Amino acid sequence: MKCRKCRQTAAVNMRHHRLALCAGHYITWIQEQTERFIKKYRMFGPDDRVLVAVSGGKDSLALWDVLDVLGYRADGLYIGLGIDGGVDYSNRSRAKVEAFVAERPHLKLTVVDVAEELGAPMPAAADLTNRGKEKPCSVCGMTRRHIMNRAAHDGGYDVLATGHNLDDEAATLLGNTLSWQVGYLARQYPVLPADAGGLARKVKPFFRFYERDTAAYTLVRGIDYMYDECPYSVDANSIYYKEILNRLETDRPGTKLQFFLRFLHAKETSRAFAQAQTDVTLNPCPSCGQPTANPAGPCTFCRTWEQVRERLVTQVGPTL
Amino acid sequence: MKCRKCRQTAAVNMRHHRLALCAGHYITWIQEQTERFIKKYRMFGPDDRVLVAVSGGKDSLALWDVLDVLGYRADGLYIGLGIDGGVDYSNRSRAKVEAFVAERPHLKLTVVDVAEELGAPMPAAADLTNRGKEKPCSVCGMTRRHIMNRAAHDGGYDVLATGHNLDDEAATLLGNTLSWQVGYLARQYPVLPADAGGLARKVKPFFRFYERDTAAYTLVRGIDYMYDECPYSVDANSIYYKEILNRLETDRPGTKLQFFLRFLHAKETSRAFAQAQTDVTLNPCPSCGQPTANPAGPCTFCRTWEQVRERLVTQVGPTL
Repeated sequence: MKCRKCRQTAAVNMRHHRLALCAGHYITWIQEQTERFIKKYRMFGPDDRVLVAVSGGKDSLALWDVLDVLGYRADGLYIGLGIDGGVDYSNRSRAKVEAFVAERPHLKLTVVDVAEELGAPMPAAADLTNRGKEKPCSVCGMTRRHIMNRAAHDGGYDVLATGHNLDDEAATLLGNTLSWQVGYLARQYPVLPADAGGLARKVKPFFRFYERDTAAYTLVRGIDYMYDECPYSVDANSIYYKEILNRLETDRPGTKLQFFLRFLHAKETSRAFAQAQTDVTLNPCPSCGQPTANPAGPCTFCRTWEQVRERLVTQVGPTL
Repeated sequence: MKCRKCRQTAAVNMRHHRLALCAGHYITWIQEQTERFIKKYRMFGPDDRVLVAVSGGKDSLALWDVLDVLGYRADGLYIGLGIDGGVDYSNRSRAKVEAFVAERPHLKLTVVDVAEELGAPMPAAADLTNRGKEKPCSVCGMTRRHIMNRAAHDGGYDVLATGHNLDDEAATLLGNTLSWQVGYLARQYPVLPADAGGLARKVKPFFRFYERDTAAYTLVRGIDYMYDECPYSVDANSIYYKEILNRLETDRPGTKLQFFLRFLHAKETSRAFAQAQTDVTLNPCPSCGQPTANPAGPCTFCRTWEQVRERLVTQVGPTL
């Protein structure tokens, strides 16, 4: 198999694109494609300040690298969740991010540590809440979104970028579809504009890449990343939906991409479908000031973490 | 396992409903549930004349039986497609329908034979058309819908009933969803009102029953039916989607029903989503008079079968 551009031996063969490339041309291809998606969906421009949410995993580090190479003004945000799970998960993830930055000293990284800032690491906190006992991932996701949004606001960033790839987006779409969450379907899009109430603009420049494409990019680009999945995600719905889609993709190659692209096309062409969104008015939370759909009282983040702190005191006494 | 109603030994155990019943109470349950769905969705009333499309398979014969027992004015329509497929498929299917009627002499059956009426059996006809070479099931479905609609119109029926069960509907929904056919999604519903242009009212009274429920009904009710699938359907998309849904159902029991019911709920509660339907104006076909979306010229049925007849003459000479 030879590289289509230079006829050297190919390093990556993307059957779904019928395209084989050598390492160098693959790197360029990923970067050019990303630039194409950023422009096509008008995600941001060269003057915008971009905050990239980095977990230490392949997608977010690859995204930060690509945006940096493309010359965008991209800083990083790492959220330390305090997850151990027998594999020292969070510490090792943070080390990957810090090693990445150490090789690129011009990059700026902000670290927010949940335990330091909020009083308890994520697993212990989730376990102390009614919602988190059943669904720890739900409390963790809500907390991360809150912290990302606040960091984007406080740092004066124009846009918040996440490394979600096609597999992530298709899995989310399948979940929302199987349960026909029309509101979520209406809000799923690679670009979400900033909300007047204070929600940051959000973009997903990698939404067209298969997971294996971003994995291959980190490999040929020599980016070391956290290979393990979060130890709490083993039973997560997202992984289940990914498995289903992988089976469909095996049976009928291209299913995953078509499923997501046709959804976008349906949204773009069917005005009524796109407008099926429930119009939610956001108000500033009286406690933290971030936007909330709760019309009377604090946001979910404040209520949840208030519960965590109350129960922490009850459980371990006021000496903590 | 005992029958919940009479404590005799149960014949059918519906785990998805946590309900075990003896043969007699199972029969009553299916009939009562069907009546409930007919009323809940206002499908038709006791004075309406119903035309049931019967294929000889379990669902349509079970439906005709249930409607008959419930006292509805239900006649049958059998469409002879002339399919052999090495298993004498159509003749054996027709024999099942005729045996069903022979045991119920008060029932009225209309038979339309495609080869007699249109000049060629379905497989040969499909193979003569551009569309049917690739997708014979598509030409067959279109032809059957045309014949059903005409029979309902000519016979002065108020409503056309088909035996589609939950597995059928969920499979159709999954197919339309994976390809995001918003127009089809908007039109999928257990009741479709008559169209001013001449489309008959259509209902699916069995849409809430799992396939295994209707199979169990025919068994305990002693209805003999055509067990084979159509020999042309082996590679059909509908069977593929059913397999996927069966895998999901195995992993998470109830998925199939929830998927379909939540879709209906989303349509019923999200006005915008329900209105995402493309508004199509139907005009009478200048050739057959049935409604068509083609603004200038004959309907798909007339164009397709005109092509069949032209090519038949070319192929085998005018002596046919």
